[in-house]
Amino acid sequence: MGTGDFLDDFATLSTFGATERGGVHREAASDADEAQRAWFERWLTDRGFTVRYDGIGNQFGLLETAPGAPYVLVGSHLDSQPYGGRYDGAYGVLAAAHAVHRLAGAGGLVHNLAVVNWFNEEGSRFTPSMFGSAVFTGLLDLDAALDTRDPAGVRVGDRLAAMGHTGTGAPVLADLAGYAEIHIEQGRLLEETPATIGLVADTWAARKYDLRVLGDQSHTGSTPMADRQDALLGAAHLVVAARGLSDELSTPDVPLHTSASRMAVEPNSPVTVAREVTLNLDLRSPDEDLLARADAALHERIPVIERAARVSVEVAGSQRWGVRPFPAAGVELARRSAEELGLTHREISTVAGHDSVNLNGHVPTVMLFVPSVAGISHNEGELTHDDDALAGVDLLAAVVRRLAAGEITGPPPGAARTRPADG
Amino acid sequence: MGTGDFLDDFATLSTFGATERGGVHREAASDADEAQRAWFERWLTDRGFTVRYDGIGNQFGLLETAPGAPYVLVGSHLDSQPYGGRYDGAYGVLAAAHAVHRLAGAGGLVHNLAVVNWFNEEGSRFTPSMFGSAVFTGLLDLDAALDTRDPAGVRVGDRLAAMGHTGTGAPVLADLAGYAEIHIEQGRLLEETPATIGLVADTWAARKYDLRVLGDQSHTGSTPMADRQDALLGAAHLVVAARGLSDELSTPDVPLHTSASRMAVEPNSPVTVAREVTLNLDLRSPDEDLLARADAALHERIPVIERAARVSVEVAGSQRWGVRPFPAAGVELARRSAEELGLTHREISTVAGHDSVNLNGHVPTVMLFVPSVAGISHNEGELTHDDDALAGVDLLAAVVRRLAAGEITGPPPGAARTRPADG
Repeated sequence: MGTGDFLDDFATLSTFGATERGGVHREAASDADEAQRAWFERWLTDRGFTVRYDGIGNQFGLLETAPGAPYVLVGSHLDSQPYGGRYDGAYGVLAAAHAVHRLAGAGGLVHNLAVVNWFNEEGSRFTPSMFGSAVFTGLLDLDAALDTRDPAGVRVGDRLAAMGHTGTGAPVLADLAGYAEIHIEQGRLLEETPATIGLVADTWAARKYDLRVLGDQSHTGSTPMADRQDALLGAAHLVVAARGLSDELSTPDVPLHTSASRMAVEPNSPVTVAREVTLNLDLRSPDEDLLARADAALHERIPVIERAARVSVEVAGSQRWGVRPFPAAGVELARRSAEELGLTHREISTVAGHDSVNLNGHVPTVMLFVPSVAGISHNEGELTHDDDALAGVDLLAAVVRRLAAGEITGPPPGAARTRPADG
Repeated sequence: MGTGDFLDDFATLSTFGATERGGVHREAASDADEAQRAWFERWLTDRGFTVRYDGIGNQFGLLETAPGAPYVLVGSHLDSQPYGGRYDGAYGVLAAAHAVHRLAGAGGLVHNLAVVNWFNEEGSRFTPSMFGSAVFTGLLDLDAALDTRDPAGVRVGDRLAAMGHTGTGAPVLADLAGYAEIHIEQGRLLEETPATIGLVADTWAARKYDLRVLGDQSHTGSTPMADRQDALLGAAHLVVAARGLSDELSTPDVPLHTSASRMAVEPNSPVTVAREVTLNLDLRSPDEDLLARADAALHERIPVIERAARVSVEVAGSQRWGVRPFPAAGVELARRSAEELGLTHREISTVAGHDSVNLNGHVPTVMLFVPSVAGISHNEGELTHDDDALAGVDLLAAVVRRLAAGEITGPPPGAARTRPADG
């Protein structure tokens, strides 16, 4: 198989949900996602893979290389953000398919191989993100996941049934010997280093909140200012405060990333002061102490904001995790593979969540990055150069070969992501 | 007719779209609005009114008292804000119907009488507000109004056709000799004075903006803070800045009311920095010079906000009007009527827009208020005491009798509201 095959396939994949400005718009279980999943099923079947779905719509392509043995699973996700980039997730799924296909018939493999397209990694249509891999690893209850609805009221379970994309016979967590994923960096460290390959050593710590700001409806014109209990004003103060935390607490060496990106206003009328606003706040840092200080500062500001806007702020949901390492043995295995291929590389952290973050701790997990031009991601302008994309497929094939040959085994104890804690 | 009739009818009217917390939820052309319009049509027909609809769904009840003469029109609107109060608009329509009904067979009338329920005064489902009266007075183009869609894509013209609530034979602007409207104050001046009746002398000046904040999508986790162009951060700064203008420029004697109450975020994903946010800003004051200073200060802050959030802010639409008087002859006519009835009264400004604001300047227009408990409005807790509500019906009947007897004629020159100017 020549390198043109991968780029041709990637160009085809990029037509599903293609936008005018070079991106893709294919949220989970949209028509465009359904079409690309059908295309990918044919791609796998045509090359001798057996396609299976699990109960939450994760799509697997199985390749028997060691009858009766556990699987080395390789993949990422095909769904995108709204008006997102064509590389995020899709690159990793197609790289996995090509890498595994290259190993068909290879000698010395003690494990079977499987490719996976995780359902709804992005979480923009059905929350939370990393949805399919969360069910797979037991972090999210299957029935609750199936009952999740999008803003228009469409239920995950109904949509998956209509697509015919649930089933049985797919691998489960206990069937795995390892997991590997390659993804675009979505930052600009590799470009600036420069290096072709990121060996992902750990995940930044994060605290994520879903907040509910409660005010009271009134008339935007006639209500005296002192009488207003303005939920949108309260929410706006929270958004500005979150940014302020990053501005105040980040240092050149130790960044704090903060954001709010989703907001719903009720009743959202041009002449009625909002009674309720829901929004997310997201704080991330590679330094757990810094993150804890930022979180404390946020909680000190909330009462001030409550008084300023005459509202109350409730935590409707939260998630937190600390800095979590990927297995050092996997980083070393990937480093050796990169060096054999003559690829420049560096260790790196992932700030974004990935399906590999859910798998990490359950099975030996290797996470790899290729460069993103200017770090642009979740944007139609997302780009990874062809030579970098092809180098990534070569490396992934080498890494999967080593994993399938049994070079590392067993999960590191106690490092798995646990059920999100409220409060 | 006893006073119980009005309260009984008002209780019935309040069942349409009734909410658990004592309010109503019946946006324009909703099922609840359709049901109450059918009920009101029967009410009118049962009492000898002839019901007619115009091209934009304004509902008229005609009562012939002076064959061939122009009409004195009396009314308000039955639609509500989402989870709004049961008095806003509905009180005025039912008061108009009862007041006009009392005048059936009265002597000395040189004009005909008509009741009106203006379509979509609230503007929460279909923008702009004061929609039906804007078409009636030529401020809004009929075809453009019919082509307006709600957020779900439902077209006004299609919905009105399905309801069968458009037609011909209704009065047009040239058929009117005068207009009268009674409404709840939606503030607390009458309660604090105290006075039973507000004689509305003028409208506050206002500047309203629809703003579009343009950023660029990126990843909420991995994108370095310095690279972000965060449209939601920019919008939040605008909301906070608007409130700051009121805090800084209002004086105890001369208030400045500012608000933002509607916001739409794209793509509104938990992990993607917003590329675009649209929001409204609304500035109102009884002092045109203060409002101009506030507007200038807002425009000075916008470039600062653009730099802080790395966004651009566009004005997608705007409306402005100065302090506009209602005809002094109408205020005096209403004052004489109130004094004859022994009702306490005071002159007052309206801060909220009303259909009467659209009629004012085209025909002699009288606008009256009754008290709102604690000024609460656009809220399920909206309340006007029964005795105040009944006093208002009495006053409205007296005012309409004087108008129909020809006590004042002709529009004041040049005071009509004109087409909104952009920019």
